[in-house]
Amino acid sequence: MSIVKPYLTTRSLVPENQESPISFLRTSAVDSSLFYKRNHFSYPHLSYSSYWIPISGLVETPLLLSMQDILQLPSKTIEVVLECAGNKRSFLRPKVFGEQWEKGAISQGFWKGVPLRTLLQLAGVKQGAKEVVIEGYDAGKRTDIDGVFSYTRSLPIEKALHPDSILAYEYNQKPIPYKHGYPLRLIVPQWYAMASVKWVRQIKVISTAFTGPFQTKDYVYYPHKENDEDAFPVTFMHVNSTIQAPADREILKTGKHTVKGIAWTGIGQVEKVEISLDGGKTWLPAELSPAGDHGYSWRFWTFDWYASEKGEYAILSKATDSNGHTQPNQPYWNRKGYGYHAVDRIVVKVE
Amino acid sequence: MSIVKPYLTTRSLVPENQESPISFLRTSAVDSSLFYKRNHFSYPHLSYSSYWIPISGLVETPLLLSMQDILQLPSKTIEVVLECAGNKRSFLRPKVFGEQWEKGAISQGFWKGVPLRTLLQLAGVKQGAKEVVIEGYDAGKRTDIDGVFSYTRSLPIEKALHPDSILAYEYNQKPIPYKHGYPLRLIVPQWYAMASVKWVRQIKVISTAFTGPFQTKDYVYYPHKENDEDAFPVTFMHVNSTIQAPADREILKTGKHTVKGIAWTGIGQVEKVEISLDGGKTWLPAELSPAGDHGYSWRFWTFDWYASEKGEYAILSKATDSNGHTQPNQPYWNRKGYGYHAVDRIVVKVE
Repeated sequence: MSIVKPYLTTRSLVPENQESPISFLRTSAVDSSLFYKRNHFSYPHLSYSSYWIPISGLVETPLLLSMQDILQLPSKTIEVVLECAGNKRSFLRPKVFGEQWEKGAISQGFWKGVPLRTLLQLAGVKQGAKEVVIEGYDAGKRTDIDGVFSYTRSLPIEKALHPDSILAYEYNQKPIPYKHGYPLRLIVPQWYAMASVKWVRQIKVISTAFTGPFQTKDYVYYPHKENDEDAFPVTFMHVNSTIQAPADREILKTGKHTVKGIAWTGIGQVEKVEISLDGGKTWLPAELSPAGDHGYSWRFWTFDWYASEKGEYAILSKATDSNGHTQPNQPYWNRKGYGYHAVDRIVVKVE
Repeated sequence: MSIVKPYLTTRSLVPENQESPISFLRTSAVDSSLFYKRNHFSYPHLSYSSYWIPISGLVETPLLLSMQDILQLPSKTIEVVLECAGNKRSFLRPKVFGEQWEKGAISQGFWKGVPLRTLLQLAGVKQGAKEVVIEGYDAGKRTDIDGVFSYTRSLPIEKALHPDSILAYEYNQKPIPYKHGYPLRLIVPQWYAMASVKWVRQIKVISTAFTGPFQTKDYVYYPHKENDEDAFPVTFMHVNSTIQAPADREILKTGKHTVKGIAWTGIGQVEKVEISLDGGKTWLPAELSPAGDHGYSWRFWTFDWYASEKGEYAILSKATDSNGHTQPNQPYWNRKGYGYHAVDRIVVKVE
């Protein structure tokens, strides 16, 4: 009768963009009902009865695979965090345009599927292959250029051939929910989630650099407000951490409080999370939960804090990964607001 | 299969505080699943089998009423907006502590019940009555003072005797949902919703000013950060408006867009909503939906906007009520962050 539960937070309905209630997630495998949704278009209508995946382009033997074919190939299951490149965008100053994601455009769980590498090897990648283009069934109009576009992205051939880039058909031991890409979703660990194309429609090997708008207009860091100079593509996730509790601007009693959060990274593993209570002058270690098997998932952390004096406190969290990358004090401002990974910060009042 | 729907946004789980997805509400009667929740404590455990309401204190005949008694009295149904006094608190600068409500700590619908006046007249209010104290079953600890407190509020005798202050037992033609005060919730139109006590446990007429902490510590405007001087109680809602669409920082195409929103007030009726596209120098009228029967509900409004030029635009909305009250350009800062009702403002980019 008094069960309390969180829900997704809606940023827009058409397309449906909703963030996870990240502060209230305490399990590794996020329930699919709380997995964040980031769509560019309305949901596509697929004909499942005639669902075939073509693998074409620069290959020896073009393939047309059925779901049956794919389900019969050797699979693997990996725990992967997916983070929208725009996660935390709302915290950038000066503010930028686009979905005002707070801290919940991130979720994780167990994805099962066939390595894209297996499929590419079946088809036989020819010499000169540079990128692999993955097209989704979702399509529609854009605000910036005329025409109808499908959501299509490419991967460098090396990343496409990485054994953990998989064409997934299960999430948490169930078919991938429709809204998250049923029946097939590409899962690209380590990269921001724009690479993990949903409702995969076709796969094509090419010898050039793919130039679709979701590759060359969106998901590009533009350091300048007024021009496109010095732009470079969004790829790997940055090392990052999020404070889950207390809530920002929460009022607490004096006494012991446990600061809780998550930390994750792209390349490598999170190895350290530190907390500062003096604005970043000194840092104290938080306790980290064990790392996942592949290092593609977030680690939970906790920090016991004894608030003996009344007053206002800023609490900062900073993660460092196995490559020595650490969160910067200030965010990297870019016009489309991607890749926010500055030190996380909340302010609480003890009374 | 592709039904999109919004959910409540969780600010905290214990107690459960969740705001309505206000941008996506287009009907007068908000579905109870999307009605905002604002609790001070965990949900109470009531014994419905022995549910009696005592009406005592400064009355001729103390009463002990059963639900049966209450259901047999003449009832009325009124459309009432309930707005948390902390709605929009997150927009105050300097920021204040407490739940960081954005624009959704507000909902409305049809409440049916018995006027509190009817019950007080049955008991016979004695000379010298000054306030009516309403206690809820919800109770617990506070951060600022030791002890266990129930959520208890008082109303001035005049407001308690107002024919539209009702002890409600139905919301939208169904029993009030448990989380919203089942079986009986006080509904006080025009006042911020801290007055609309849930899970009513007892009613008492007193000759003095009630001094419980939810009356004299919380729900008080403190104009100064460091001291309690010039404090005064939170009572009536202010005239207010909220832009529902476009979303703040949304990217739009050039062309026609409909700006949509709601407007409401405490005393009187909303009579005018105006939009400014030049930072408040000039204002243009929005089109208002019909007012509700009692003037206790919000009015929807729309404004057709032809965005022919690319660029960034601030869109402001300002409501004015039948008493000539209008939204100020700047919010009234107060330490606990109540009663925010400055002109609403979003920024969009047309490309």
